[in-house]
Amino acid sequence: MSGSSFGKLFKITTCGESHGGAVGVIIDGCPAGLEITQEEIQYELDRRKPGQSAITTPRSENDTIHIMSGVFDGKTTGTPILLMAYNKDQRSEDYDHLKNVFRPSHADFTYLMKYGMRDYRGSGRASARETLARVAAGAIAKKYLQRELGIEVISYVEQVGGIKAYIPHHLVTADQVESNIIRCPDSDVADAMIKLVEEVRDDGDSIGGVIKCVIRNVPAGLGEPVFDRLQADLAKAMLSINATKGFEIGSGFAGVEMRGSVHNDPFVLEDGAIRTLTNYAGGVLGGISSGEDIYFRVAFKSVSTISKLQHTLDVDYNQVELIAHGRHDPCVLPRAVPVVDAMAALVIMDHYLRNKAYAQG
Amino acid sequence: MSGSSFGKLFKITTCGESHGGAVGVIIDGCPAGLEITQEEIQYELDRRKPGQSAITTPRSENDTIHIMSGVFDGKTTGTPILLMAYNKDQRSEDYDHLKNVFRPSHADFTYLMKYGMRDYRGSGRASARETLARVAAGAIAKKYLQRELGIEVISYVEQVGGIKAYIPHHLVTADQVESNIIRCPDSDVADAMIKLVEEVRDDGDSIGGVIKCVIRNVPAGLGEPVFDRLQADLAKAMLSINATKGFEIGSGFAGVEMRGSVHNDPFVLEDGAIRTLTNYAGGVLGGISSGEDIYFRVAFKSVSTISKLQHTLDVDYNQVELIAHGRHDPCVLPRAVPVVDAMAALVIMDHYLRNKAYAQG
Amino acid sequence: MSGSSFGKLFKITTCGESHGGAVGVIIDGCPAGLEITQEEIQYELDRRKPGQSAITTPRSENDTIHIMSGVFDGKTTGTPILLMAYNKDQRSEDYDHLKNVFRPSHADFTYLMKYGMRDYRGSGRASARETLARVAAGAIAKKYLQRELGIEVISYVEQVGGIKAYIPHHLVTADQVESNIIRCPDSDVADAMIKLVEEVRDDGDSIGGVIKCVIRNVPAGLGEPVFDRLQADLAKAMLSINATKGFEIGSGFAGVEMRGSVHNDPFVLEDGAIRTLTNYAGGVLGGISSGEDIYFRVAFKSVSTISKLQHTLDVDYNQVELIAHGRHDPCVLPRAVPVVDAMAALVIMDHYLRNKAYAQG
Amino acid sequence: MSGSSFGKLFKITTCGESHGGAVGVIIDGCPAGLEITQEEIQYELDRRKPGQSAITTPRSENDTIHIMSGVFDGKTTGTPILLMAYNKDQRSEDYDHLKNVFRPSHADFTYLMKYGMRDYRGSGRASARETLARVAAGAIAKKYLQRELGIEVISYVEQVGGIKAYIPHHLVTADQVESNIIRCPDSDVADAMIKLVEEVRDDGDSIGGVIKCVIRNVPAGLGEPVFDRLQADLAKAMLSINATKGFEIGSGFAGVEMRGSVHNDPFVLEDGAIRTLTNYAGGVLGGISSGEDIYFRVAFKSVSTISKLQHTLDVDYNQVELIAHGRHDPCVLPRAVPVVDAMAALVIMDHYLRNKAYAQG
Repeated sequence: MSGSSFGKLFKITTCGESHGGAVGVIIDGCPAGLEITQEEIQYELDRRKPGQSAITTPRSENDTIHIMSGVFDGKTTGTPILLMAYNKDQRSEDYDHLKNVFRPSHADFTYLMKYGMRDYRGSGRASARETLARVAAGAIAKKYLQRELGIEVISYVEQVGGIKAYIPHHLVTADQVESNIIRCPDSDVADAMIKLVEEVRDDGDSIGGVIKCVIRNVPAGLGEPVFDRLQADLAKAMLSINATKGFEIGSGFAGVEMRGSVHNDPFVLEDGAIRTLTNYAGGVLGGISSGEDIYFRVAFKSVSTISKLQHTLDVDYNQVELIAHGRHDPCVLPRAVPVVDAMAALVIMDHYLRNKAYAQG
Repeated sequence: MSGSSFGKLFKITTCGESHGGAVGVIIDGCPAGLEITQEEIQYELDRRKPGQSAITTPRSENDTIHIMSGVFDGKTTGTPILLMAYNKDQRSEDYDHLKNVFRPSHADFTYLMKYGMRDYRGSGRASARETLARVAAGAIAKKYLQRELGIEVISYVEQVGGIKAYIPHHLVTADQVESNIIRCPDSDVADAMIKLVEEVRDDGDSIGGVIKCVIRNVPAGLGEPVFDRLQADLAKAMLSINATKGFEIGSGFAGVEMRGSVHNDPFVLEDGAIRTLTNYAGGVLGGISSGEDIYFRVAFKSVSTISKLQHTLDVDYNQVELIAHGRHDPCVLPRAVPVVDAMAALVIMDHYLRNKAYAQG
Repeated sequence: MSGSSFGKLFKITTCGESHGGAVGVIIDGCPAGLEITQEEIQYELDRRKPGQSAITTPRSENDTIHIMSGVFDGKTTGTPILLMAYNKDQRSEDYDHLKNVFRPSHADFTYLMKYGMRDYRGSGRASARETLARVAAGAIAKKYLQRELGIEVISYVEQVGGIKAYIPHHLVTADQVESNIIRCPDSDVADAMIKLVEEVRDDGDSIGGVIKCVIRNVPAGLGEPVFDRLQADLAKAMLSINATKGFEIGSGFAGVEMRGSVHNDPFVLEDGAIRTLTNYAGGVLGGISSGEDIYFRVAFKSVSTISKLQHTLDVDYNQVELIAHGRHDPCVLPRAVPVVDAMAALVIMDHYLRNKAYAQG
Repeated sequence: MSGSSFGKLFKITTCGESHGGAVGVIIDGCPAGLEITQEEIQYELDRRKPGQSAITTPRSENDTIHIMSGVFDGKTTGTPILLMAYNKDQRSEDYDHLKNVFRPSHADFTYLMKYGMRDYRGSGRASARETLARVAAGAIAKKYLQRELGIEVISYVEQVGGIKAYIPHHLVTADQVESNIIRCPDSDVADAMIKLVEEVRDDGDSIGGVIKCVIRNVPAGLGEPVFDRLQADLAKAMLSINATKGFEIGSGFAGVEMRGSVHNDPFVLEDGAIRTLTNYAGGVLGGISSGEDIYFRVAFKSVSTISKLQHTLDVDYNQVELIAHGRHDPCVLPRAVPVVDAMAALVIMDHYLRNKAYAQG
C-alpha cells in the first residue's frame, strides 16, 4: 500500500529512479489477445523524451523500451507485462554537490523527512523520469481503447504562462497536436508560446501552463459511484503527475458563476440517440460517463529547476546558495502532453474493465 | 471493486440511497482507544442537514446517527464501526412522476445506462443524502486528528456565484466559519453571498461557488509517491463529492503564469525549524506533506434541481417538460462545507496511518 | 486495510460484535437486477442459528435480517447492499466475570495484545456471531450463482471426532444435507455423529470435525494466477472462519503419497466436451477452474468454550479457575455448514466477476 | 485486480514466464534503511535453483538476480524495488511439439480456456520458474524480519511419499535443513527420502510430500480479523504455490478428533511472561499471533511432468500420446522449501507493517 500502483483491474505498478538500473512498469490485468509492438510504445515515449526540440532540456536519456514479459507472438497473453528502460550509467559523484542541499520546491526535503534517507542522484524517485513508465503503460491502454473500442484520447497545450489558445476541443486532431514543438493545435498561438518559452529559457527561468485533454467515444456507463466516480479517478491521475497543481472538468472553476438554469445540459434526441444539447458537465453525470466528450484541464506549475541563483538550506540547517548545473526544461508542457494522455487512457481502460465486470449479459 | 470504499488503512465503505432503510458507513481501520460520542458525530451532521437556515432546502430529513458497532465504553475498539441514520418513511408513489424522466444534469440517465435500472426515489444513490455517511465517518477522523495529533481541518465558503471573499486562509477559525449561515468568515462578503442566494432561490434557480480548505499542523512526511501523492488523494476525495467540477492546490491554475524563480518556495530557518518563506506549493512537495499549511480550493457547480421549467427526454425518447416539485437547495455550498472537511480529514487520517506503517523505529 | 473486507469485485465488509447494536455487512459489487427476498437470506441464516436442534447451543439470538439498502422493487440495484441483524439487549454486567480472564484458546489475550483493550462481552468481534454477516452476504452470492449461472454449492459434515462418512461427493444433494440435524448426508453415520455430540455435550466438553464442500458447474476459466489462484482464495476464505485449522483440495494431504503417473488426471472426450477421467486436482489446474467439480475439505477444531473446570490466567497474571457459565455448542459443525457454503459462494462469485472483466467479446 | 500481486503494505507484484525476457518482481512498501546485498538474495535463489543436486532437474536456468531499483548505497530507500533474472535465450520451436497438446494436470487447458491463447513455451506463466520472483522478494522480507525483529522462518521437508519424519519442529535449525539435499533435518529419514526420490526418478515418475514451516519470535498482535486472520493469509500464500493441495496449522486435520478439554491451550506464566502450556493452536488465537511458535504444514502433490507415456487430448480434440522430452524434477519438495520460506516471510512482514500502522503510541 505504498503508492506505486494505479488502477484496479488494469493495474500498473511502476519502479525506478532517475539513476540506478532501470525504470519499469508491470501492467497486471491487460486483456489477452491485443496486438502490440515495441514500436507503438516507443512512439509515445519519443513524444516525452528529453532533447526532442529546442525548447526541451537537451539532456540525453535512454528511452528505449523493452518488453520483458506478457507478450508472445506479438500479442498480449493476459499475464503481467513488464516494460523497462535501462538508465544510463552515471557516476554518483556527479551529484555530490546536491547531496546535502534542499532545492527549493523540489522533494529533497520531504523525501528525507519521510524515509530518513534519499537517493539524491537526479531527484531519485521524484524525477520526471518516472513518467516514462506511465507513458509506456499508457501506450498499451491507448492502443486497446483505440483499436478495440474506438475511444480516442487527445491532449494538447492550451496555455503557457499568460498565453492562452481558444480552441474548440471537439475538433482537435492528433496530427494538429504534433504539428509543432509546443503541442498547441493553434499554430499562431503555438508560435507565441514557443517564443515565450525561449525567452524564459534564455533567462534561466521556467514557466508553467495548462494542458487540456478530450476523450471521445467513451460509452455511457463508465465510473463507479460514489468514490470512484470517473472524474475523481481522472483528478487523482492528473494530480499524481509531477508539477500539477489543478484539475477541472467540464465547466470547472468558471462554471461556479453559472446558474443552474444555464448550466444544466438538456437531453435531446440526435440521430435517434440520447445526447445533451450542451456539455458543461464534461461528459460525466453522477460520476458516470454520459457518452458525451469527456474534457478536462490540468494546471502545471513552472519547473522547480532553474539556472538562477537561489537561497536555500542544507541538511545541517546552513544557508547556502544554489545554482543548478544540470540542463533543465524551461517548460514541461510539451513533454507532459503524452503523460496526460497516458494517465487518461489508464483511467478509462480501468473503468472500462470494471464496468464490464458488472455489465448485464 | 465497485466504488463505495475510500481509503486504504482508514477505510470507509458507505451504503444507502435517499430512500430505503438507511444510509450508513462502516469504518474499518480506526485505531483502538479513541474516545468518541454520538454527540460529537451529530455535531458535524447538523452542519450538513437540510433545513438548518433560510438558504438551505426546507426539506426535513432524519439525520440522527446511531453507533451500531465498534465502540465500547465510549471508546473505539479497533474493530469496524458502523454508523447509520434511518431514512424517513416515504411512499414510493410520491416519485412516480420522475420514474421515467431524465432530469437534466442529474444522474438518472447514466445510472440507467450503467445498471439497466435505477432507484428513482429522490435520486437514489446519487442523492446528496449519501454525503451524510461521509460526514459521519469524517467526524471520527477529525476527532482523531485534532485530539491525537493536533491537526486542524477548516473549510469555508470563499465564493458564491461571482462574489468572492479575499481571506488569508491561515487566520480563519472554526468559529468564524460558523458565525453566519453561508459559512464565509468575512461577514460583509457573507451578507452579499446570502443576498445572492436568496435572489437565486426566489427566482427558482441555483448557483455554485468555491470552498476553500486549510489543514494545519500536518507533520512532514505524509503522502505515498508516486500515485498516492497527498494532493492526488485530496483531488480524488474532492471530485468524488456531488456537484464538484474542480480542484486546485497551492498556487493552482493562477500559478501557471508564475515563473519558477517566483514560484519556488525558499527554505528558511524559523525558530530552529525548516520552513518555507512562501507556500505556493500548498503544503506538499513531491506528493509528500512539507509541514506547511495544506490548502486547496474546490469548485461546486450550481445544483441541478431547479424550479424553472425545463425541457428534457423521458425513457421512451419523448420530449417532456419538467418542473421540479421538491424543495431544493438554491446553493449547496454552506451544507457542503462539512463534507469537504470530512473528506479532507479522511485523506489525512489514512495517510497518517500509511506513513506510520513504514516509519522508522 | 484492517481485515473486515473480503473479495475484490463482489466485496463484502462486515461489522459488529456479539453485543452492541448490530451485526451487519455491506456488499459492494453485486450486479444489478438480481431478484432477492428477505426470506431467501433468512433461510440460510436459520441454518446457522443457535437453538435449531438438541445438539446446538440453546442460547437464543436475534437472527432476523434486514435489507437496509441496495434493493428496490425486489431487485438489486447495483449499489451497496446493507444487511443487518440487531443484537439482543443484554447487560454488560453479565460479562463482568470474564472481563479480566484470558479464556484458554479464545482470542481474549490476543485482542488485548493487539488493540490494548477489548470488548469482553460474549467474545466481542471474535464471537461466532460474526459469521451471521458472512452467511447473509453468501446467501445473495449463492442465489446469483444458482439462478444466473447454474452453479451449485453444497457443504456437509463428513467427520465428527473420529467418526467419518465415506460419501461420493458428486452425488450429495442439498436435501440430503438438511435431512438430519448434524448435516451429514449418510443417515447411519449421522446417527453415530449425533450420539457422539450428545455424549460430548453431556460431558461438558466439545469436539471438532471436517466439512466437505463441493461446487458444481463452475465454468472453466475462474481464478487469477499467480497469487489469486482459485484454491488460494478458497483456502483463505476457509481459514478465515472461526475454529478452522486446515484446508485441502482434491487429493489433499493423502495425495502426497500418489505418484504422478497415478495422480495426473488424463483429458478425455465426453459427449463432445473436454473432461478429465479422474479429478484428483479437485477442479483446478494452475489455479484456474477446469470445469470439473471443485471439492475441498475444511478442518474444524473443537469449540474452545467448555463447561469443565479450566486453569488459566487473568490480566493481572494471577492463576484463576474458569467454569463457563454460558451455554455453548458442543460441536460447531452443523452450524458451520452454511458458513462454508457462504464463503465458497463468495469466492466463486468474486472470481466469476473478475474473469468476466477480462473475458473476450 | 488480475492476480499477480500479494500483500497489502509489503506488496509484491511478479511478472515473467518461463521464456521471454525475464522473470521479475516489484516490492512496493519495503521500509527504507534496510541493508541488503545481491548476494543475500542470491543465497535464497540458489536454494531453489534447478540442478543443485542429483535429485533435482538437471535443467540449467539463469538465476542471477539483478537489483534494478529501490536500493542506493547498499540500503533500501523506501521506493519500489525491482528484482529481475533474465531468461535464457531459447528457440520457441523447441516447444512446437507441445503447442497443441493439453498435458495432464498441467495448466495448458485452463490457460487456453481463460485467455483464449497461451504461451506454450515451458508452461509459460504457470511454470515453476515464477517462484523465483517470490523467493527473491521473500529474501528481503526474511532479512528484515531476522535483522530488525529477530523473527526466524524455517521450513523443511517432513514427508516424501509415504516416508515421514517425526521431528520436534521447535528444535530445527537452518543448518540442519541445509545439511542434506532433500532438506529434511533428520538425516536417517533424509536418506530414505532421497532413495525414494531416486527410485521414482529412475522410473520416470514423480512423487509429492509435505513441507513443515515454523516461525519463531513473532510478537503477539499480528493478524487482522476477521478475514485477514494470520492463518488465512498463510493458507492463501501456501495454496498459491504451484502443486500445493493442502494447508494445516497447529493441530490441523488430526486435531479434529481432540476434545476441547484436551485441545485448549492453558495460559501459564513462564519467566514472567504469559505463554501457553501447549500450542495446538499453532501460534494464532482468533486470527492474531499469540507469541507462541507459528507452525503449519503444506501438502505438495507429485509433479505433473513425468517421462512415462500418457494419453491425453490436443486442441483439436484428438487423442494423442505424450512422452515428456524435458528433464523434470522427480520431487519438487527440496526446491520448494525456500518458496515456502519466502511466502511465509512475506505474510509475516506484511502483517507486521499492518499492525504497526494501528499500534498505539
